[in-house]
Amino acid sequence: MAAIMAAGSARRLRSGGMIWTPIVARSPLLQPLRSAKTRLADKAATCRSLSTERPPTPTSFTWKPVSHQGVTVELAGSEAAQDDLSRDLAAHLKVWKLEGRKAVWLPLEVDTFHLAKTASALGFKFHHAKGAKATMYTWLPDEIPDKVPPFGFHQVGVGALVLNQRNEILLVKEKHSQYDRWKMPGGLVDPGELLPDGAKREVFEETGIRAEFRSVLAFWQRTISADQSDLYTVCRLECMQDPSQLRIHFDPNEIRAATWMPVEEYLAEHDHPMLRTVLERSFPTPSKREEEAAFLPFFELAPEDLQMHPSKPTTFQSFFATRRTEAV
Amino acid sequence: MAAIMAAGSARRLRSGGMIWTPIVARSPLLQPLRSAKTRLADKAATCRSLSTERPPTPTSFTWKPVSHQGVTVELAGSEAAQDDLSRDLAAHLKVWKLEGRKAVWLPLEVDTFHLAKTASALGFKFHHAKGAKATMYTWLPDEIPDKVPPFGFHQVGVGALVLNQRNEILLVKEKHSQYDRWKMPGGLVDPGELLPDGAKREVFEETGIRAEFRSVLAFWQRTISADQSDLYTVCRLECMQDPSQLRIHFDPNEIRAATWMPVEEYLAEHDHPMLRTVLERSFPTPSKREEEAAFLPFFELAPEDLQMHPSKPTTFQSFFATRRTEAV
Repeated sequence: MAAIMAAGSARRLRSGGMIWTPIVARSPLLQPLRSAKTRLADKAATCRSLSTERPPTPTSFTWKPVSHQGVTVELAGSEAAQDDLSRDLAAHLKVWKLEGRKAVWLPLEVDTFHLAKTASALGFKFHHAKGAKATMYTWLPDEIPDKVPPFGFHQVGVGALVLNQRNEILLVKEKHSQYDRWKMPGGLVDPGELLPDGAKREVFEETGIRAEFRSVLAFWQRTISADQSDLYTVCRLECMQDPSQLRIHFDPNEIRAATWMPVEEYLAEHDHPMLRTVLERSFPTPSKREEEAAFLPFFELAPEDLQMHPSKPTTFQSFFATRRTEAV
Repeated sequence: MAAIMAAGSARRLRSGGMIWTPIVARSPLLQPLRSAKTRLADKAATCRSLSTERPPTPTSFTWKPVSHQGVTVELAGSEAAQDDLSRDLAAHLKVWKLEGRKAVWLPLEVDTFHLAKTASALGFKFHHAKGAKATMYTWLPDEIPDKVPPFGFHQVGVGALVLNQRNEILLVKEKHSQYDRWKMPGGLVDPGELLPDGAKREVFEETGIRAEFRSVLAFWQRTISADQSDLYTVCRLECMQDPSQLRIHFDPNEIRAATWMPVEEYLAEHDHPMLRTVLERSFPTPSKREEEAAFLPFFELAPEDLQMHPSKPTTFQSFFATRRTEAV
């Protein structure tokens, strides 16, 4: 055991003290175990493992400890034979289990895809995959149910309710939609992108209009299959440019038509259920507002950066149900 | 070509008129093409393809057309040889491309994982994977950028602000958290689950308390890696039971402590940034409310089912920024 632990430590030191952390380990909903508890568990695991045979140093992979008492395995590449991997990995899984380790991660790339079948026979299953990489894992403890959170399975989209200083809404008709109706510009948020940036990007890509993010007004969530769900937010944006300068240049690959339309005209003549309901729920009715006043919602989710952990400078971009102070 | 198209149609009929639809095709953000346009494209594609050689009927796979001018390939199982697949698939990709088809989908299971390398050499990449299945795809048109939306990559979590009729909040301390502070019960939404059900389930699992969903008060969104993002909502729930009956039975595997705490005590002595900010932004301050009145927010996102398509009965569970009519 000492040899294995030392090898793990040496590898950790060689990589500059940084260890590979599975993506899921960073979820705030799965905090690392308290260190005191971990130390106790490690001690107990070491004692237990003294009664097991020490597996030979594997030729088919290297491994290192990761957070949440996990291990990640790095396959030796295409030269790793299926028989060697099966034997080496089975021996190590046995020891890791006795040590009290929990999830074992196995990233695969093109050269090692063929080993997925071997891994599957040892209990590994897919956690996620994208592009040229697929990641498998297995959960070791028999007495604790699998606690590895599934990879994200929600699509997050954004529709932009863009208003200009004439109280007109920016509307588009999608080129590839089966419905011939005006809707808000919008689309899916990109990986690494927050809602305000996604909303501004989609508006600019689809219409050439630059607008500022103000708030979140509504969202829906629904399941689109047994595997995947969809969360679509409606954000309020303001276009601060001089209305006479607001030339639309729409993307002909995505958009068939785009226009600025007075709110009253939209409500009188058009009907997209989400847009209509947002206008009716959150904004004053046209009859109740002054002609010259800006068309602003009474209530919205206002953005605010939260510092979640006292010791960490990282902030979380959050949105809170708030009454706009300047609202009627 | 006629043989291939007929084979596709026959297969479609044999499966009762149902065709396999890639999950992504169901996103409301990627509507099916208008049928007139599709018919024109199909006609043009057929004409163009007359100049190409007809590929032999493949032995290594079957295929069928799917929505968005796509194709899904079903491998013949473990007996499919890599050489045969490579030859057959390359020939068909050429024809499908000339026909104007767009995405080609390739689901893999344990028996066919070893063919991922062959597919990768033909331009396939992973779209998503989970459990025993991985799905690859390739995008055919050279002149149009890849329009296949990535598989969902957001985790959606829910924190439950549960209030009882004594204006006490339900709080927990997580067993595996590095922070020793009171927080809302909550966790990740399960596949196929909507926020209200996720909130009620997490509250019951963690504390044994049954509560009713009322509204969404806030959320944060942040990127947790280059690949994955996290959207965490705070929902308001009400526990309508007689306060004297509110016995907490917390889950000792997840929770170290659980309690009902008066709002004033929480605000005076404790500090979870998200919970504190929600209480401060959306609710009346304790000094401004009557001792006996229910502790209710001024503003929240109220649930409302939207019928999005006039011709379809399906509703989308939505939440709109709304002033509570009975609020002070």
